Amino acid sequence: MTTLYPIDALTDDVAAIAQRAREAAYILGTLPAKVRNEILLAAAHEIERRHGDILAENQKDCAAAEVDLNEGRMSSSMFKRLRTTERGIAEMAGQVREVAALEDPLGRTLDATELDDGLTLYKVSCPIGVVGVVFESRPDVVTQVGSLAIKSGNALLLKGGREALNTNRILVSLWRDVLSGFSEVPIDAINLLETREDVSRMLSLHSQIDLIIPRGSKDFVHYITKNSSIPVLGHGDGVCHVYVDRDADLRKAAEVAFDSKVQYPAVCNAMETLLVHEEIAESFLPRIVSLYRSAGVEIRGCSESLRMMPDEIVPATELDWSSEYGDLIVSLKIVKSSQEAIEHINRYGSGHTESIITENSDLANHFMNRVDAAGVYHNASTRFADGYRYGFGAEVGISTSKLHARGPMGMDGLTTYKYKLYGNGHIVATYASGERSFKHRKLTVAKS
Amino acid sequence: MTTLYPIDALTDDVAAIAQRAREAAYILGTLPAKVRNEILLAAAHEIERRHGDILAENQKDCAAAEVDLNEGRMSSSMFKRLRTTERGIAEMAGQVREVAALEDPLGRTLDATELDDGLTLYKVSCPIGVVGVVFESRPDVVTQVGSLAIKSGNALLLKGGREALNTNRILVSLWRDVLSGFSEVPIDAINLLETREDVSRMLSLHSQIDLIIPRGSKDFVHYITKNSSIPVLGHGDGVCHVYVDRDADLRKAAEVAFDSKVQYPAVCNAMETLLVHEEIAESFLPRIVSLYRSAGVEIRGCSESLRMMPDEIVPATELDWSSEYGDLIVSLKIVKSSQEAIEHINRYGSGHTESIITENSDLANHFMNRVDAAGVYHNASTRFADGYRYGFGAEVGISTSKLHARGPMGMDGLTTYKYKLYGNGHIVATYASGERSFKHRKLTVAKS
Repeated sequence: MTTLYPIDALTDDVAAIAQRAREAAYILGTLPAKVRNEILLAAAHEIERRHGDILAENQKDCAAAEVDLNEGRMSSSMFKRLRTTERGIAEMAGQVREVAALEDPLGRTLDATELDDGLTLYKVSCPIGVVGVVFESRPDVVTQVGSLAIKSGNALLLKGGREALNTNRILVSLWRDVLSGFSEVPIDAINLLETREDVSRMLSLHSQIDLIIPRGSKDFVHYITKNSSIPVLGHGDGVCHVYVDRDADLRKAAEVAFDSKVQYPAVCNAMETLLVHEEIAESFLPRIVSLYRSAGVEIRGCSESLRMMPDEIVPATELDWSSEYGDLIVSLKIVKSSQEAIEHINRYGSGHTESIITENSDLANHFMNRVDAAGVYHNASTRFADGYRYGFGAEVGISTSKLHARGPMGMDGLTTYKYKLYGNGHIVATYASGERSFKHRKLTVAKS
Repeated sequence: MTTLYPIDALTDDVAAIAQRAREAAYILGTLPAKVRNEILLAAAHEIERRHGDILAENQKDCAAAEVDLNEGRMSSSMFKRLRTTERGIAEMAGQVREVAALEDPLGRTLDATELDDGLTLYKVSCPIGVVGVVFESRPDVVTQVGSLAIKSGNALLLKGGREALNTNRILVSLWRDVLSGFSEVPIDAINLLETREDVSRMLSLHSQIDLIIPRGSKDFVHYITKNSSIPVLGHGDGVCHVYVDRDADLRKAAEVAFDSKVQYPAVCNAMETLLVHEEIAESFLPRIVSLYRSAGVEIRGCSESLRMMPDEIVPATELDWSSEYGDLIVSLKIVKSSQEAIEHINRYGSGHTESIITENSDLANHFMNRVDAAGVYHNASTRFADGYRYGFGAEVGISTSKLHARGPMGMDGLTTYKYKLYGNGHIVATYASGERSFKHRKLTVAKS
């Protein structure tokens, strides 16, 4: 089990790869959970056994990236995400084992109805089929998404960033080696694409591919969405807000507003705009502004806030309210009411994650119902919006779509359902004629 | 409560209508179930009270349509769908009451996890927001979809066929009159668009509209899907199959194959292709062919079937295997194995509804797992694929997408979920530093 990814598969036509993935998915999707878990455990073991090889391939990528970094063609945060370590590899293996330990997402009866005597309808969870995932830098996506896909019976077409090519190659190769040890599973369940042209071709293969998940910059996600004939799930923007209400505990408010912005500003669940109720602005602003300034955060504020702290705040423009900085910059607005805060968020927000800080729980519930977003929080940092923190084991992406999966997507994002109807020769004419009528008896299903 | 739909709203700009619908949706989505049900019951009452007006408006449409029918510009089935009667109106009111009686789809806790002490995550069902529904002829769509939308807290933009304009106007007007009787609910929750240009404009309003549901011909659905910047749920094709296995009870097989084709051939869940195992073809073919011939069904068969019954079967071409006839025509193929049947269906089927006729339940389960479709049936007619027959009360459409809603869509198709996180000043830095770690305790949620 040490062959590298066969080069002919890499240069093969994308449509042929996708078609083989489609056929592999039909088989993978009907394997018993036991076999799917054994594949994952074998992969975790292989990741550990071949840690030296993985590090060596990653080192090749990092050496090339270092040149780009020094010559200003790569950001330091991108370089940081690219590099893996012994500890990183151990964590990859650990995550794969965590996914193996999760409950089987397939074959779950979600609903059951006896339509009539001997005619019973079941709504049963099943895989989506073939999923294309396009991502940048982070090599652990190959192990995270790979394990979620195998566990949920889906075949994958992966396309990683050019800068991580060697690392992605050895990791995909490892998955395929593991699959080859299970005679019933086609290795074509996991595939690596390597060029931008491959991605363009993939976007038109709606007969072979069921879902595209883009992970990357806003422009990149928009490009994929605009050019795909296949459904796309992802998030274009992450313009998240924290609203500090007049009934807020100002200590909590300062901590949450600081954490939401500063703890990791480059990610989509970081806050971009802080909204503050006018009645507590006088006492709260000096506190949070001093914290932000000590962390090097630039503050772009509304005219009201500028009036209060002209030395620390620069003027915000209309564009700031819809900007995802991804950096140590925050926009700040003083609002007259919680209603104004809700309206501001529904107007400028991206439907990602929104938090209210208040001790008034009725107001918190109103805010959480009225704000239209994948995540609505009370007294908590927006940074919690993440599959791992939500307890999903791993995450395949984050969706700001309202259809299918919303928010951090774990395995649920990779499953759908089908209706299974069991009859005994039942025909519709019997019911159309009035000879029989439907009973529609709901059957109890076990909720896991 | 007898004002007709105000003419200025009809000629208003679609973007403005959609924006008002968006604002109405925010309010509608947070109304208590009691109020949403009261609106439905009031609407049912109004439908009955104004039955004479509705009939009169429908009569206007039918009179105009009769000219089109006589001059060959309208099909008789379309004309039939357009006409409503006293009984039809009573049924409309009955359906609205049935929807009122359904369980509340909003605010249901779908999942709950204690991430850590005092930090609890809930996955809660909520409305999608603003939904555009484009449909043809059938005026009862206005009452069916209207009641499902109000019940599930969604605002609607409806665009019906030109031929039903007067009927659609009075029915939408009736909904708005009813809404005006509830001071907390904006009447803009339900809107009627009247022109094709309105539909084109609607398809670009992705900030105001969350979902488009097209109901109509395949070409129409394709047009909408191709031109929409908003997610679309619908079904392009309905190429459904019945596979008669060698272990089939031939009496059941004949009844199901007949019902699936003949009971109502114009609809998407009617069977288009009959697959027959070669070992029972000699005994089964004469039986089903004679039934089909007596009902006037044209049979287009593979070469093997032609050899067996040259006088009754005409040759099928490759195109027949992917054709949705919507008429008294069936394609027929003799297969060597159940595996060939599965492969044929996965290749040519549209992912709508597929049925196997067999007394071998292991094989039935294998077929139902391997066939990639919204509905997979054992010993039952494909014609059961319908929201009413499934017990959903009413249906908003049928989806052959694998994302979000699959198969007949009841209210579930109009709901999504949001994550609500309740903390007490929790920040991510505490976990990143290792000071605390997540507990991820699953909480039991009541399954309704």
